[in-house]
Amino acid sequence: MRVRKEDGAGGKYMMDFLRNHIITRFNSRVAEISLDEFEDSTDFDVDYLLTTDSYVVNPPIFPGGSIGSLAICGTANDIAVKGGEPAFLSLSLVIQDGFEIEMLDKILNDMSQWIKKIGANIITGDTKVVESNIDIIANTSGIGRRNRHLERNLEILREHREYPFKWIRDSGISPGDLILINGGIAEHGSAVMVAREELDFHIDVKSDVYPVWLFLRDAMDVGGISAMKDPTRGGIAACLNEMAEKSRVGILIEEERIPIREDVKSFCDVLGLDPLTMANEGKVVMAVHPETADDVLKSLKKAGQRDAEIIGYATSEFTEVVLETSIGTRRIVPPPVADPIPRVC
Amino acid sequence: MRVRKEDGAGGKYMMDFLRNHIITRFNSRVAEISLDEFEDSTDFDVDYLLTTDSYVVNPPIFPGGSIGSLAICGTANDIAVKGGEPAFLSLSLVIQDGFEIEMLDKILNDMSQWIKKIGANIITGDTKVVESNIDIIANTSGIGRRNRHLERNLEILREHREYPFKWIRDSGISPGDLILINGGIAEHGSAVMVAREELDFHIDVKSDVYPVWLFLRDAMDVGGISAMKDPTRGGIAACLNEMAEKSRVGILIEEERIPIREDVKSFCDVLGLDPLTMANEGKVVMAVHPETADDVLKSLKKAGQRDAEIIGYATSEFTEVVLETSIGTRRIVPPPVADPIPRVC
Repeated sequence: MRVRKEDGAGGKYMMDFLRNHIITRFNSRVAEISLDEFEDSTDFDVDYLLTTDSYVVNPPIFPGGSIGSLAICGTANDIAVKGGEPAFLSLSLVIQDGFEIEMLDKILNDMSQWIKKIGANIITGDTKVVESNIDIIANTSGIGRRNRHLERNLEILREHREYPFKWIRDSGISPGDLILINGGIAEHGSAVMVAREELDFHIDVKSDVYPVWLFLRDAMDVGGISAMKDPTRGGIAACLNEMAEKSRVGILIEEERIPIREDVKSFCDVLGLDPLTMANEGKVVMAVHPETADDVLKSLKKAGQRDAEIIGYATSEFTEVVLETSIGTRRIVPPPVADPIPRVC
Repeated sequence: MRVRKEDGAGGKYMMDFLRNHIITRFNSRVAEISLDEFEDSTDFDVDYLLTTDSYVVNPPIFPGGSIGSLAICGTANDIAVKGGEPAFLSLSLVIQDGFEIEMLDKILNDMSQWIKKIGANIITGDTKVVESNIDIIANTSGIGRRNRHLERNLEILREHREYPFKWIRDSGISPGDLILINGGIAEHGSAVMVAREELDFHIDVKSDVYPVWLFLRDAMDVGGISAMKDPTRGGIAACLNEMAEKSRVGILIEEERIPIREDVKSFCDVLGLDPLTMANEGKVVMAVHPETADDVLKSLKKAGQRDAEIIGYATSEFTEVVLETSIGTRRIVPPPVADPIPRVC
């Protein structure tokens, strides 16, 4: 038996692989969140979360960013979607012998720019140089901190209903919650594909890589967010399915309300890719209590997320993720078995 | 300009590389330890430390252990040498497409065995599969926790002198402190070389990979430890030089007191390798106040470190690391410019 690409591709195969090989050996819970819940980060103290991600994107520099932007924003985002403040990061680089220093410096500059914008610090690191043909692999682990925005969000949510968690959890959705996204989908996956220059045609699309903490602070101050997840590998299809399953609700999304750039949509159409399964890097799918959802939407737009939209709602009427088209037909959106494009983050 | 192997090899070249590319961009201090002090782990709270390491050892399985044992013990050791209790780890795997599942399971079993012995937990993770010829790369980041053994050690040390730090620091040595090591050197580096099967002759040597926390707890209860470091890449030569420089002391070590197996010594001799620069994985170099050093030595032996030895002392008479031979001649042990063997951890 051998490891297959699908085993690391963010879909159903990966979940099976992780359950069979990792969870059976290491399952644990030291605070509220347990390893087998596959949350984006895990609490180890009433005040702190831990997350980790190794970035293997190919090519390491692409329109809109680099593996450096991913390594900082991606890890910060895994913290922010639990309501944590991205505070302290580790940086471990594995670099191919002969990798261009100029390219490395560009990557490190991207890291430096984003870590400052987020207001976090890299506090420890490690560097290895190898002969394997990897270009560069960057691991960032991150510590998220309890903060007043999270407290405020939970306080407001609890004015409306019970919410038994200390952090914002994937399993926190209740039927009736509205589903929001902060902008257009499928841009990161498309940008990386274009950057690979294996295609006959190009579109002018940039990765949407961005630290979502910068607008989630304000959204949490409005309050009532019951679940959040960043739709990276596997796109919003994987993300919505995971949230629905963990929360034991169904989710209906309306196709025409899902923000997507026209050219990105055409690009995916021509290549036969479903934009719902394409990776994003600066997006959050949020479930919000219906009474505060409009105000959360307003706060997202005010914080620069102009294409933010309410795209659907959670329901107890079914247990799947269902897409309703503009003419009213419905289809089930299955969890992707794997990411359509490997090495996208 | 291109990245060179030496830039990631744990010696002087790596320090220059890190200073020029990483520290200039990211230098920070959020609690006591700052990034440019290059400690094995960094505190971010009065109670917690963070460390990270990406393991790239080739081959991934070797006599005495595997990349799995390294990933757990190595990261736990970077915490333990600051006096921290290894508590919570993240595990991020990058696996080559086609890697044998049996080998992966052996590696994961090693991880599982050691994490249990240490009493720590893996609380979060990430898995990627790539086509590059890496076999497997494992990153573990770890959180260390303040504990009563550390408190006791500092308390006893402070009965003898001022010690201004909250953790056990590389810069904590005072002249007169004795230098201890818990057993034979150069075993990990030798075992990895033998496992590569590129040599005409073999010795029966195993990696010394081991979680030093298991005996440091007792040693800290005896107390008076002023600095500790695990001599991995660059061996005890790199380790002693770093400690001496940071503490602004000289260190004299007596050649005949340095524990080393006869066959390991001959192996290094034949290959023209200096065992002082060869990697170790279950060793700690400790500086201990002279009044408690004998009792610390006893506690190490009692905890199973039978070859533990006092190998020298710190002095204000010079600022180098000096090796005294059995016939009384002295030579300076320079900091290695790079590790003699690449991909050893």
